Amino acid sequence: MTTPAPVRSVLARYAELTRDAMAPYLAAGEPACYLYDLVRDYPARPGKGIRPALLLATCQAVGGTLRAGLPVAVAVELLHNAFLVHDDIEDGSEARRGAPTLHRQLGTPLAVNVGDAMNALSMRLFRQNVERVGPERALRIFDEVDHMLRESLEGQALELGWTKDNRCDLDLDDYLRLVLKKTAWYSFIHPMRIGAIVAGADGVDLNRFDAFGFLLGAAFQIQDDLLNLDGDAASYGKEIGGDLWEGKRTLPLLYALATAPANERVTLAEFAGRRRERRLPRQVLDIHRILRASGGFERTREIAHALAAAAQERMDTAFAGAQEGPDLQFVRTLVGYVIDREV
Amino acid sequence: MTTPAPVRSVLARYAELTRDAMAPYLAAGEPACYLYDLVRDYPARPGKGIRPALLLATCQAVGGTLRAGLPVAVAVELLHNAFLVHDDIEDGSEARRGAPTLHRQLGTPLAVNVGDAMNALSMRLFRQNVERVGPERALRIFDEVDHMLRESLEGQALELGWTKDNRCDLDLDDYLRLVLKKTAWYSFIHPMRIGAIVAGADGVDLNRFDAFGFLLGAAFQIQDDLLNLDGDAASYGKEIGGDLWEGKRTLPLLYALATAPANERVTLAEFAGRRRERRLPRQVLDIHRILRASGGFERTREIAHALAAAAQERMDTAFAGAQEGPDLQFVRTLVGYVIDREV
Repeated sequence: MTTPAPVRSVLARYAELTRDAMAPYLAAGEPACYLYDLVRDYPARPGKGIRPALLLATCQAVGGTLRAGLPVAVAVELLHNAFLVHDDIEDGSEARRGAPTLHRQLGTPLAVNVGDAMNALSMRLFRQNVERVGPERALRIFDEVDHMLRESLEGQALELGWTKDNRCDLDLDDYLRLVLKKTAWYSFIHPMRIGAIVAGADGVDLNRFDAFGFLLGAAFQIQDDLLNLDGDAASYGKEIGGDLWEGKRTLPLLYALATAPANERVTLAEFAGRRRERRLPRQVLDIHRILRASGGFERTREIAHALAAAAQERMDTAFAGAQEGPDLQFVRTLVGYVIDREV
Repeated sequence: MTTPAPVRSVLARYAELTRDAMAPYLAAGEPACYLYDLVRDYPARPGKGIRPALLLATCQAVGGTLRAGLPVAVAVELLHNAFLVHDDIEDGSEARRGAPTLHRQLGTPLAVNVGDAMNALSMRLFRQNVERVGPERALRIFDEVDHMLRESLEGQALELGWTKDNRCDLDLDDYLRLVLKKTAWYSFIHPMRIGAIVAGADGVDLNRFDAFGFLLGAAFQIQDDLLNLDGDAASYGKEIGGDLWEGKRTLPLLYALATAPANERVTLAEFAGRRRERRLPRQVLDIHRILRASGGFERTREIAHALAAAAQERMDTAFAGAQEGPDLQFVRTLVGYVIDREV
């Protein structure tokens, strides 16, 4: 089954609209070569654009306009890019959207500062919402962003801590708790909630998006783990097996840690506890083989499909009362996309 | 000449008030060991507390109350601590307020995330100003914070960039431009401006604080450079000579680069261009000797005194119409303190 073409084209269109609308806020300034040129780097790289698309589609599906949603989508997407710069440093990632990560190009010191500047710039855009959507809605959006930041930073802390302490006793519940924090709130639930606030749909119960967004986000993240371990480098845009190099607690790894033969579990735990620079290419291949033999990839894929099916069931509740049309249709087909995508 | 006791005791009192008022916002949460325990680390270390003191003293001198100023001082001080966590990473600093820096204790990944969480928490506190001082003043404060962030991040970018590119052709104007950006706005000008906004002193022209704050901030930063190169480690709380290890463009270094004999200038430039880990203790001693022989310490001290004298002259303009009393007196004596302090 391939991804339906319309999902990709809607994603591409909203991503382009958001990128164009963001451009004026990323204007040149001094110091250019140490700061403002670098602020433009990640936003200029082609990403999937799921967050702005979900925000803009939700906004319009519940009665808002593209024009109202776009500046807010820009702020959310810029905040996302700020996060990526710091996440790449924290994870020691090598590649992002098909090119070396910012800290690999510039060193960590300048990259930390660039991420902070992008974050500050996105806060300025959220501040400017006051003039656009009025103080009441702007403050509600700010509270959504506050919660989004809190959950994401807690999720990132958990993941980094588990890697640092080489936690090998984690189960599916731990994993889903992590995914809710690090992915679902930030990339799925809050974009929908914020989209509905911008639309001014005061009769919409925002909490209705939460279960749908969690299930969708979990399916998305699990597919991301699978692509990272088993995907095609050229289309994926990151380092294949990067999560192994980075010691991340992905679902296939947790499955193998729980079910593989004892000697292989020792190998996995020993590998997972090494510092990145002491992990060797041949070991990464070994670990990959153990994961495959454990059946963890298939089991993980089954879980992603079950989560996506559960999301599908929640879709109508989440968008009860929304207008039928291309935006609602886009969100509906997004459920299939998150588990079928190869990028 | 020693620092007048009252300045230190006022600083200590306002720092304590701010720390106590901050405590409830730093309550325990999960994940504790990877995030919330760490968020409390820097704020618990005793700092000078210049920013909250200047904010609270200005607020009261222009007619506001301590009670109104305190929550805002807490937000500013927490934002400052967030900055310190990232600055220490960016500068590769070893010690902060008498203990190892956070990233030396935890590694860079967790420390970047902790700094982001502290930043997000301070933004939440600025958001809560809406309930405390009303939306109009809260938004004005937010705009001050926005400008403060922009200037500080540009200053940090400049300084990191100059180090990275081993710029050896910088003069006093470049240095003062850097100091305005990285120190004066953030630690002096904006705390006073924000204090006046909180006070609701709508007749006060905020721009009157700018020149005074710039001169005071420049004198402070130059004294900081001197203490770093020539101070007492136990009282200073950072690594003595840390700026040399970190390759920072301090005024004594710039002076020696411009005036020392040709062979010594080559030595300085070669040293300044090395990576930190390739700088040797004996070289740091050599560089220190060259700086001392160049007369740069005396010249730098003269400049700090001239800036402080100029600040003194602007004091009455900056605080025209303010109430005579202990707070105004504190700001007045702060001018002497910034250049006479040994901590």
